[in-house]
Amino acid sequence: MRALVYRGPKNVAVEDVPDAEIEKPTDVLVKITTTNICGSDLHMYEGRTDVEEGKVLGHENMGEVIAVGDAVDRVKVGDMVCLPFNIGCGFCKNCEHGRTAFCLTANPGTAGAAYGYASMGPYDGGQAELLRVPWADWNCLVLPDDAREKENDYVMLSDILPTGYHGTQLAQVGTGDSVVVWGAGPVGLMAAMSARIRGAAEVYVVDRQPDRLELVEQIDATPVDDSGDDAVDQVLDLTRGEGADAGVEAVGYQAHDHEGHERPGMTINSLIAAVRPTGRIGVVGVFLPQDPHAQDEMARQGRFPMDFGTFFFKGQTMGTGQANVKQYNRGLRNLIHRGAINPGLIVSQELGLEEAAEGYRNFDDRVDGWTKVLLRP
Amino acid sequence: MRALVYRGPKNVAVEDVPDAEIEKPTDVLVKITTTNICGSDLHMYEGRTDVEEGKVLGHENMGEVIAVGDAVDRVKVGDMVCLPFNIGCGFCKNCEHGRTAFCLTANPGTAGAAYGYASMGPYDGGQAELLRVPWADWNCLVLPDDAREKENDYVMLSDILPTGYHGTQLAQVGTGDSVVVWGAGPVGLMAAMSARIRGAAEVYVVDRQPDRLELVEQIDATPVDDSGDDAVDQVLDLTRGEGADAGVEAVGYQAHDHEGHERPGMTINSLIAAVRPTGRIGVVGVFLPQDPHAQDEMARQGRFPMDFGTFFFKGQTMGTGQANVKQYNRGLRNLIHRGAINPGLIVSQELGLEEAAEGYRNFDDRVDGWTKVLLRP
Amino acid sequence: MRALVYRGPKNVAVEDVPDAEIEKPTDVLVKITTTNICGSDLHMYEGRTDVEEGKVLGHENMGEVIAVGDAVDRVKVGDMVCLPFNIGCGFCKNCEHGRTAFCLTANPGTAGAAYGYASMGPYDGGQAELLRVPWADWNCLVLPDDAREKENDYVMLSDILPTGYHGTQLAQVGTGDSVVVWGAGPVGLMAAMSARIRGAAEVYVVDRQPDRLELVEQIDATPVDDSGDDAVDQVLDLTRGEGADAGVEAVGYQAHDHEGHERPGMTINSLIAAVRPTGRIGVVGVFLPQDPHAQDEMARQGRFPMDFGTFFFKGQTMGTGQANVKQYNRGLRNLIHRGAINPGLIVSQELGLEEAAEGYRNFDDRVDGWTKVLLRP
Amino acid sequence: MRALVYRGPKNVAVEDVPDAEIEKPTDVLVKITTTNICGSDLHMYEGRTDVEEGKVLGHENMGEVIAVGDAVDRVKVGDMVCLPFNIGCGFCKNCEHGRTAFCLTANPGTAGAAYGYASMGPYDGGQAELLRVPWADWNCLVLPDDAREKENDYVMLSDILPTGYHGTQLAQVGTGDSVVVWGAGPVGLMAAMSARIRGAAEVYVVDRQPDRLELVEQIDATPVDDSGDDAVDQVLDLTRGEGADAGVEAVGYQAHDHEGHERPGMTINSLIAAVRPTGRIGVVGVFLPQDPHAQDEMARQGRFPMDFGTFFFKGQTMGTGQANVKQYNRGLRNLIHRGAINPGLIVSQELGLEEAAEGYRNFDDRVDGWTKVLLRP
Repeated sequence: MRALVYRGPKNVAVEDVPDAEIEKPTDVLVKITTTNICGSDLHMYEGRTDVEEGKVLGHENMGEVIAVGDAVDRVKVGDMVCLPFNIGCGFCKNCEHGRTAFCLTANPGTAGAAYGYASMGPYDGGQAELLRVPWADWNCLVLPDDAREKENDYVMLSDILPTGYHGTQLAQVGTGDSVVVWGAGPVGLMAAMSARIRGAAEVYVVDRQPDRLELVEQIDATPVDDSGDDAVDQVLDLTRGEGADAGVEAVGYQAHDHEGHERPGMTINSLIAAVRPTGRIGVVGVFLPQDPHAQDEMARQGRFPMDFGTFFFKGQTMGTGQANVKQYNRGLRNLIHRGAINPGLIVSQELGLEEAAEGYRNFDDRVDGWTKVLLRP
Repeated sequence: MRALVYRGPKNVAVEDVPDAEIEKPTDVLVKITTTNICGSDLHMYEGRTDVEEGKVLGHENMGEVIAVGDAVDRVKVGDMVCLPFNIGCGFCKNCEHGRTAFCLTANPGTAGAAYGYASMGPYDGGQAELLRVPWADWNCLVLPDDAREKENDYVMLSDILPTGYHGTQLAQVGTGDSVVVWGAGPVGLMAAMSARIRGAAEVYVVDRQPDRLELVEQIDATPVDDSGDDAVDQVLDLTRGEGADAGVEAVGYQAHDHEGHERPGMTINSLIAAVRPTGRIGVVGVFLPQDPHAQDEMARQGRFPMDFGTFFFKGQTMGTGQANVKQYNRGLRNLIHRGAINPGLIVSQELGLEEAAEGYRNFDDRVDGWTKVLLRP
Repeated sequence: MRALVYRGPKNVAVEDVPDAEIEKPTDVLVKITTTNICGSDLHMYEGRTDVEEGKVLGHENMGEVIAVGDAVDRVKVGDMVCLPFNIGCGFCKNCEHGRTAFCLTANPGTAGAAYGYASMGPYDGGQAELLRVPWADWNCLVLPDDAREKENDYVMLSDILPTGYHGTQLAQVGTGDSVVVWGAGPVGLMAAMSARIRGAAEVYVVDRQPDRLELVEQIDATPVDDSGDDAVDQVLDLTRGEGADAGVEAVGYQAHDHEGHERPGMTINSLIAAVRPTGRIGVVGVFLPQDPHAQDEMARQGRFPMDFGTFFFKGQTMGTGQANVKQYNRGLRNLIHRGAINPGLIVSQELGLEEAAEGYRNFDDRVDGWTKVLLRP
Repeated sequence: MRALVYRGPKNVAVEDVPDAEIEKPTDVLVKITTTNICGSDLHMYEGRTDVEEGKVLGHENMGEVIAVGDAVDRVKVGDMVCLPFNIGCGFCKNCEHGRTAFCLTANPGTAGAAYGYASMGPYDGGQAELLRVPWADWNCLVLPDDAREKENDYVMLSDILPTGYHGTQLAQVGTGDSVVVWGAGPVGLMAAMSARIRGAAEVYVVDRQPDRLELVEQIDATPVDDSGDDAVDQVLDLTRGEGADAGVEAVGYQAHDHEGHERPGMTINSLIAAVRPTGRIGVVGVFLPQDPHAQDEMARQGRFPMDFGTFFFKGQTMGTGQANVKQYNRGLRNLIHRGAINPGLIVSQELGLEEAAEGYRNFDDRVDGWTKVLLRP
C-alpha cells in the first residue's frame, strides 16, 4: 500500500510499504478515507522527537472497515468509523475509568499509545491506504449514515475536537463562564467551539496570526491579538479586571515570543495571570519531559520557570494531558449529526495522499492560509 | 486586653492593646479559649512577609461568644465557636460557591482575608484575649456541648485539619487509593488523617524528622524517611513501581534539601515524579507570588523550574490554594463529636498567652518535640 | 402602596396595603419594575393551598433598590436587582452548601421560604409597588447596565429560567445528550432552552397545546404533540428505541389525561418509560405532600402509584425540588447580558399592576396565547 | 461437572451437567473456589421469577483461571479472580462510561446481564465446579497473592460489598454525614461498612432480626430495632429531628410489615420520611417491573403508592439500580488487601457444593444465624 513515511528531520515521503493487516483476533482493518496532518506531527517532522525512521505517520484517521478479526463483536465490515488518536485496550485500570489516553496495556512501560507517533508504541499511522486498529470494539467510533457527507466534520472527532473539548473539561467550563484560550490553531479553535457548546458566555482566543484570528470570529468567539498590546492585559480588561473564569492552553512548549524565540512556559504563565483566583486551567498543548534539541538546559529537561507562587496564591487548578477521546467522541458525534456544530469549517486544504509531503512542508512553514490539512488516500 | 504583637523579624511580644469590640452590626465578639501557633505564622515571624508592626497575630482561634451585633441572627452569646482562619463575607461570587478562602469582599483588591496575617486584610488575630469576628453568622462554626472537653480537637477545625483535608479534596482522594503526603508537619499529618477518612488504602508521609515520622505511625499511616534513600524511589517501590494515585504537598516554598538549602519547588517536582500518570496532586503548603528575601532571583519572583513536561506527559492534575474551611468544618466537627477522629493528638505544648513569645522561638527553632503549640489566653 | 392580594379561591384584587419597609438591618427595599404571574401562583388562586387571605402574592420579582438597611454591605441604592423566588439566609447548613431553596432559617420548621407563597413563610410578595428583601446581600442579584433594556429577559432569572435549568442540572444534561421535557409551559420551555445551553444534541418537549408547541420550535427544540399518538412511543421512536438520555418533568401534580381528569404521577411514569436505562430525571414541576382538594384518597395524601419496579430495573436516577436559584442566576445573567439567550421571548402579555386580577383570570383559564404574563407596577 | 440446578419453585438440586468451557476467544474458564448464595437467589428459589428450569444458579463467584481464549490479553492461567455478578462487554455506550451493570451487548434487548439469573441472559451461574467468563479481560478482577487466605473477604467483591457501596455512592455519602440504611441483611451491612469507609459520622441500620442487629454493632454502626417503636421516629430522634443526610434501601420489594404482609414500597416511603430535606437516597434492594405472584394488582405491575409529594417538597434525590461493580471493586479490593476492612465477618456458613440445596432451604427459611452462606465446590 502507499503510505507517508518518516525519513528524518524535514523529510517525509509517500512510499510503497507492506499492507496493514489483521494481526490479532481483536483487530479490524480500515480503508482510510480521510486522514489529517496534525500540528503535533510537526514535532516529529522537525526532528524534535526520537521517532524511528520508516514509521508511517498519521493519528487523525477515519475510514471504512474492510475486515474484522475473529473476536470482534460490535464493529462490522462496511461500518464507517472514526478512530481516536490514542489506542486503548479498554480493560486496564486507566481505560476502565475513562482515562483512555493513558492505557497501560497498549504501550508497555508508558501510559498511553497512539497511531504513528513517537514514543507511543509500535503502531503505524493512518496517512496510508490501510490502517490496522487494535482492540477494535473498544477503539472504533461507528458513524451514522451521513458519514461521507460530513466527512470533514466527523474526521475531527479523531483528535482536535475532543482535544479542544478536553481542555474545556479540564478547565471545568460551565454555563455563563468567561473563558480564555491561548492559541488559535486547530486545537484552540476547537476549544473555543467547545466552550460555546458548554454554555460559556464569553470566549476569548489569543493569537497573532491574522488568518487564525479571523477563524476565531467565524466560530463566534472574540479574537485577542497579541501582536501588539499585552494579551494578559487585554483579557483582564475584557473581564472587568477580574480575569477569566477558565483558561485553556492550546499552544504547547513551542510557544514563541515577539522576538521569535522559543519560550516554553510563556503561555502557562500568561494563563496564570489572565485567569481569576479560583479559576481553572486546562492544558492540552503538548509539553515534553525531555526536549534534547531545545536551546537552554532547563528546556532540555522539560522544565521552565513557572509562576507557582501566583498560581498558589490565586488558588487555581490545572489539569493536563492528552485527551481521553472516548469520553467525548459519542456526544460530539451526536452534535455533528444534528448539525449543531461544524468543526470542518477550519479545513483549509484537501490533498491526495501523494501530495502529503508537500502538505507537511507548507503546514510546517506556516504558509498563510494553511490552517488544517486533510489527506484523501 | 493582652495580645501577642508582631514587632519585627523574630520579635513578638505579649502586650496591652485596645480591647477588640463589635464594630459592625454583623460582628460578634469572642473570648478566646484556645489559639494555636501555626507553621505559617513563622513566615511572618522570620521576616519573610511584609506584615506591619503592631499586628496581633493568630488565625487558629476558638472561644466563647460574649457579644453579638444587632444584625446577627444565628450565633448567640454563650455559644462555643471555632473560627475558620479565612474571613469571608458569605455573599460574593466566590463565597456563595463555597470558595470561602477567596472572598472578594473582606480584603478589597485581593481574593482572600484572614485574621492576623500578612496581606490578608486589616483584621487582628486571636492570640489575644478577645477577637472580633466579622460576618459572624457566616464565619462562626458553632460547637456541640463537648466543646470544652475536646477543645484540643475542635480547635484544629480552624485551620490545619480542614487544610489537610483540602489537600485530599484537591487530590480527589477516594476509596482504595494510594496517597503520598509530602511533609509530616501538622498540616501533613492532618492530610494523612483525612486520606484515611476518605477511605484511602495506603497513606505514605514523607519527612526526615524522627519525632514527626513517629506521629505518622500514630495516625496509622506509613512513614517514608527521606533523610537517607531518595523518597521518590521509596514511594515508587511501595506502589509497585506505579506511583501513588494521589499526592498532597504540605511543606511549601521553604522546603530544604539535604544540604540545608532552601529549594522552593523541590516538593512539587518530587510529587510529579512520585504520583502515577492521571494522578491528582493537592497543594496546601504555602507558595508566595513574591519572596523578596529569597536567595536567588527566580525564587524572589515566586518562580521555580517546574517539571512541567513530565507533569503534562503523565496527564496529572494539580489543585492549589488555601483551604475553603467552611466546605469541610461541619463534617469534620461531626467526626470529632462522634469520636471517630482525634486531631488533637498532635498537640505537643499547651502554654499560657504570656508564654507565647517563647512558644514562637522554640517552634521556629524546630526544637525537638515542638510539633504543635496551643495558647490558652 | 398598591398590591395584588389573595382574597379566597379565584378571588384576587389589587388593593391599598401598608407600604413594605426595611424591618431588619440586613434588609433592602425594592421598587418593583416587573413582577410575573407564575403557573404556581395558580395553585393558590384555585384554592388548592392553605395560603392565608390578605397575602400579597408574587415571587418573580425585579426592581430598583430604593433603601438599604444598616448592615447591608454589597447592595446599593439605585442597583437594579432580580430576586430569586426563594428566600435564604446565606449561612445555614443548606444555604452554605448552595441548596438555597431549602433555607433552614427563613421559615422555621420548614426547609425553604419564598415571597408571597403558601407555606413558605411570612413574606409578602412582589405583585406590588414595593418589596422588602431580607438578607439582601445574599438574596439580590445585581444586574448590569442593560437591565431596563432587557427587563423581560432578566426578570426570568427570578424563577422560571433557573427552575428550568435546575431540571436539566438534576437530570445531569451534558454534551450531545438527548433530552425529553414533559410540559411546554414556561418552565418546560426554559428547561428546553437550558438543555441547549448545556450542549444537548436532541431536545424534545411534550405538550398538547398548539400555542405552546409553536414556542417549542421557536427555541429550537422538537415539539412532541401528545394530543394524538402516545408521547412515550413517539419519544422512543425519536431516540431509536433507546429512550432519552435525560428527562425533565415540568408539569407537576395537576397533570391531566386526555379525558381531562387530573392524574398526578402520569408525567413521572411517562418519563420513567421514555428515558433510557441509566438515564436521569429532573423533577421541577410541583408535587404536594398533602392535597386536600384532590379527587381520590391517595392523591389527597400526596401519593400516586409509581412505576418503581421499572425505575429500579432501568437504574434511573431522579432529582427533585425547587430550584436553588442562586446556583445558576449569575451564569444565566451573563448569557442574557451577552445576548446568547433571550428567555423573554415567551412573554405574551405585559399588564399594569391594576390589571393583575384580569391577568390571573385569563392565565388560569388557559386562554389561548396567555403563556406568560408580566405586571408593571 | 457438578452444579446447583433450578428445578422449579423451592426445588434446586446438585446434578451432573456438561462442563463449562471456552466458547469464544475472549472467554476464560474458571475453577470455582467459592460461590455464595445471595438473597436475590431466593427470588428465583421462591418461584417469583420466570427463570427457566435447568439453569445453573450462582452469581457471586471466585476462583482460579484454568484456561484462556485466544483473544485474552490480560488474564492468565493460574490467576485468582473474583467475578462481578453483572456481565459486561466493556465497549458499549453504558460499559464505556462505567455503567457496567447495564451492558447493552451481553443480553440483547435488555440493559444488563448476569451469571445464573432470571432475565439476565443465557449465562449459567457459578454454583458449580466450573464457570465460563465472557469478555474476560474486562470482567475479571485479578486478586493479589493473599487471595486464598482472605477468600471469605474477597468473594464479597463479586456482589454484596460493591452493591452496598453502590448504595452509598447513589446516596452520595460523604465526610461527616449521618446515614440510615434500611435492612441489615448482607447488602445492608455492606452499605453500613461502606458508609464508614466514606467517612460517615453516624451510621444507623434498621432491622428487626436480633442476629442481624448484632452484626450491625460488630461493624461499628448503630442498630435501630423496628420491631417495637417506629423506626422513622427513632431515626429522626437520633438525628436531632433533622433526618439523616443520606439513606440506603437494602431490602427491596419483599419488605414485610409487622403483621407479616408483603408491602413493596414500605421501605422507600420510610426513607423519604427519615432522610432530611435535600438528602439523597440510594436504592439497591431489588424492585421488579412485574411481579405476577404479588398479592394485589398494583404490586403485580411493579407499582406502589409512593410519597412523591413529600419526596419533592423535601427536594430529595434518589438513585437506583444494580451496582456497577467494576466501578468499585478495585478500590475495595485494595482495602481488603491492606486489612482495612473484613467483609467476610458476616459469613455464617461454609458448605460443600453438595450441601447447596440444604443451604438454600435454610437461608430461605431465614433460620436464625443463617446470614450469609458460602459454597466450596
